[in-house]
Amino acid sequence: MFKRILIANRGECAIRIIRSCCELGIKSVAIFSEADANALHVKKADFAVMIGPDPVKSYLNIHRIVTIALETGCDAVHPGFGFLSENADFARAVTEAGIAYIGPSPDAIRDMGSKTKARESMIAAGIPVIPGSESELASIDEALQLAHEMGYPVMLKAAAGGGGRGIRRCDSDAELRENYPMTKREAAAAFGNDELFMEKCIVEPHHIEFQVLADTHGNVVHLFERDCSIQRRNQKLIEIAPSNFLTPELREQMGAVAVKAARAVDYVNAGTVEFLVDRDHNFWFMEMNTRLQVEHTITETITGVDIVAQQIAIAEGKALPFTQDELSFNGFAIEFRINAEDPKNDFMPTPGRITRYNSPGGPGIRVDGCVYAGYEIPSYYDSMCAKLTVFAPDWKSTVQRAKRALAEYDIRGVRTTLPLYISIAGSEVFMKGEFDTGFMDKYPELLDYKPRKPREDIAAAVAVAIAAHCGL
Amino acid sequence: MFKRILIANRGECAIRIIRSCCELGIKSVAIFSEADANALHVKKADFAVMIGPDPVKSYLNIHRIVTIALETGCDAVHPGFGFLSENADFARAVTEAGIAYIGPSPDAIRDMGSKTKARESMIAAGIPVIPGSESELASIDEALQLAHEMGYPVMLKAAAGGGGRGIRRCDSDAELRENYPMTKREAAAAFGNDELFMEKCIVEPHHIEFQVLADTHGNVVHLFERDCSIQRRNQKLIEIAPSNFLTPELREQMGAVAVKAARAVDYVNAGTVEFLVDRDHNFWFMEMNTRLQVEHTITETITGVDIVAQQIAIAEGKALPFTQDELSFNGFAIEFRINAEDPKNDFMPTPGRITRYNSPGGPGIRVDGCVYAGYEIPSYYDSMCAKLTVFAPDWKSTVQRAKRALAEYDIRGVRTTLPLYISIAGSEVFMKGEFDTGFMDKYPELLDYKPRKPREDIAAAVAVAIAAHCGL
Repeated sequence: MFKRILIANRGECAIRIIRSCCELGIKSVAIFSEADANALHVKKADFAVMIGPDPVKSYLNIHRIVTIALETGCDAVHPGFGFLSENADFARAVTEAGIAYIGPSPDAIRDMGSKTKARESMIAAGIPVIPGSESELASIDEALQLAHEMGYPVMLKAAAGGGGRGIRRCDSDAELRENYPMTKREAAAAFGNDELFMEKCIVEPHHIEFQVLADTHGNVVHLFERDCSIQRRNQKLIEIAPSNFLTPELREQMGAVAVKAARAVDYVNAGTVEFLVDRDHNFWFMEMNTRLQVEHTITETITGVDIVAQQIAIAEGKALPFTQDELSFNGFAIEFRINAEDPKNDFMPTPGRITRYNSPGGPGIRVDGCVYAGYEIPSYYDSMCAKLTVFAPDWKSTVQRAKRALAEYDIRGVRTTLPLYISIAGSEVFMKGEFDTGFMDKYPELLDYKPRKPREDIAAAVAVAIAAHCGL
Repeated sequence: MFKRILIANRGECAIRIIRSCCELGIKSVAIFSEADANALHVKKADFAVMIGPDPVKSYLNIHRIVTIALETGCDAVHPGFGFLSENADFARAVTEAGIAYIGPSPDAIRDMGSKTKARESMIAAGIPVIPGSESELASIDEALQLAHEMGYPVMLKAAAGGGGRGIRRCDSDAELRENYPMTKREAAAAFGNDELFMEKCIVEPHHIEFQVLADTHGNVVHLFERDCSIQRRNQKLIEIAPSNFLTPELREQMGAVAVKAARAVDYVNAGTVEFLVDRDHNFWFMEMNTRLQVEHTITETITGVDIVAQQIAIAEGKALPFTQDELSFNGFAIEFRINAEDPKNDFMPTPGRITRYNSPGGPGIRVDGCVYAGYEIPSYYDSMCAKLTVFAPDWKSTVQRAKRALAEYDIRGVRTTLPLYISIAGSEVFMKGEFDTGFMDKYPELLDYKPRKPREDIAAAVAVAIAAHCGL
């Protein structure tokens, strides 16, 4: 059993891990940059160490983080998501310091982190991958030739990209010629690696991912799927579990492929196998995320499995406490990423001070937040304030509950994605429950919401009106 | 389908009902006294009407409430719990005004509201009741004679009492002589009815109650049990579901008796059949609460059934959507009543202003609160600020999660029952999971907690210490 875990992350992600540590009786050590001195993860951890003045680089300083883990007597490190969570060098440095890394092996991180290498492994394992270049594109001429063979549209992708970044769609020779050097430059700048590869573009696919868990004893299971098709610029906004689009047969088939993918790279710990699925239920391996995902909450909600606790148990060498047959899911869950962003202004971040914060409660609501009244959202980090997870026994009730919870959510001081979600959750197209990745482009009117007053202000105004009407 | 429901209640109870209304697409009309102008239920309802200057009597003014329901165009009234929720005259007045009453018939309320009448009905139906007087005690002599027949200890109870009030234990003739006139006087003052009856005192029983639902089509089911044995002065503090004390056979047997009890009085809507269970698994009917219970949240959590939504559907004339065989439960849930009270000062209420309010989040947490930072808790009402419901797949994980959630809960400005619950949840006797109603008396050391600093203050202090240690 671990006694003390350093959490190499911040914000909501760090808090999520602190919670499982606390429930397992393990002490948590948080790290924080100067800019994060008032962050909630610092307050909630058992211990907290300031790691430096630079708001971002501090969280990426492998040597410093490993040193602190050693100095504070930690026997394990959890990378969370983002920052160093898919950095093979970090996993290796932690392990070489004699500390357990709560995640897969450095080799698995590296192999799945490279899009081309991952494709090779999956093809070798007989797993369907999207038609595309078998390795790095050597030149624009090779790119053009391949595009002609597959037919437009095609996707240009940075080999080291992830989280929806470093991707460009090309519909013609002209667009490919224009995008090729641009994507290459951007990949170099963003990921320190300008390798590109190309894939056939699946038009308006569903983004369906399977959560897998693998222990060190050779057991691998999946915890069913998440439908993450509602995105903006390839960034997820709303995720649901299970997917309304999958049949039980397709679920079983894709789940088995996800487990096979994990086995193919001797995967250990939690991971996510992402697929694209077209209208006709054809599916292709897209990538594997070798870490915890933001949207793991919806899987926890429908399966009752604490994924972070399982990650820790796996790293402790324990065997999974369930077989695939013992796993099942109940009801539906939807996660909304409450970001401090202005959807009407191209989702520009809106850092600032939160002046009021009242989260919804009652049945079927889970809130994973990292802000509070008086908190100043720094401009250096991603803009997520909270994740609202809503659950109910059936899809319709889940949507109705989501509308209620979103209306109750009261965040003042900064603009957030809440009014957009109220618009989406209240729409007929969302209630239908089936959406592909073209959803946000197909229904631009969802962005055409009125900046709405919080429910309670409306109620107070109506109270006065009714009181007058009743002669009070 | 109802279009608009008046909620004849306040605070957390009213908010709970507003939430289900909102999810069902039904408009909610809140009522409020002058003292409650800033209460959260007023802000969360669609409409709100001020019902008068008197803080308590306003919520008990049947004529006024029915008039407002009519004037605001409500087609139904939900009484909640407390206030008029077990008042047959209120149910009748609502019904006679042509408005649906979301609860049982006035006759069922009256018959189950009278302890003696309820006993008679249960005996007639062949349901085990605690040995005691078959009807009102005519005199102290009759009381003494009966006590001799049954043997001490005995309980003197006000026929119109409820919620643990109007009850006195007597261990000898002398105590009975002393308590008889006192209890009679108190009953007259508190309930406007001085009838007393007597029961054999079951020593250190378990308080186990079954949630039942009955529709207008003759269907009656139970939603399993709640163990409410952790009480102070007969008032519940912590409830759990399911009970660790019941065997599957006893659960089935008691559930069937609960359904039989409801059928015996042609019960309709949600109700709770309360039993006392002794160490040897003998059980006796104690009373039936003809309303929603505070602790319904734990049943909702383990069964996935929205009890308030079912109450509304039943009042609309709908048939129950499930049979007994289709109902099951998963995992464990614990409810903690977070009261503004000082446990060390005999649970005296501690009204005042809340200066900070951050509720816990993450997996397995449900919060039903009615306070916020800046809210002034009035002194006129019960002292409940919030209900914290914690759930996990097994008992041990649920307790561990409860400890985590209680430690995270940050309420400043008033003393609450939180530190007592931290003391209880952290004790070995609680982890054992079996307790009887003697729990709080048996372990007085649980009250001997240190007023503890919020976790985040400790963490911040430690952060400074560690930062210094690491030479930052």
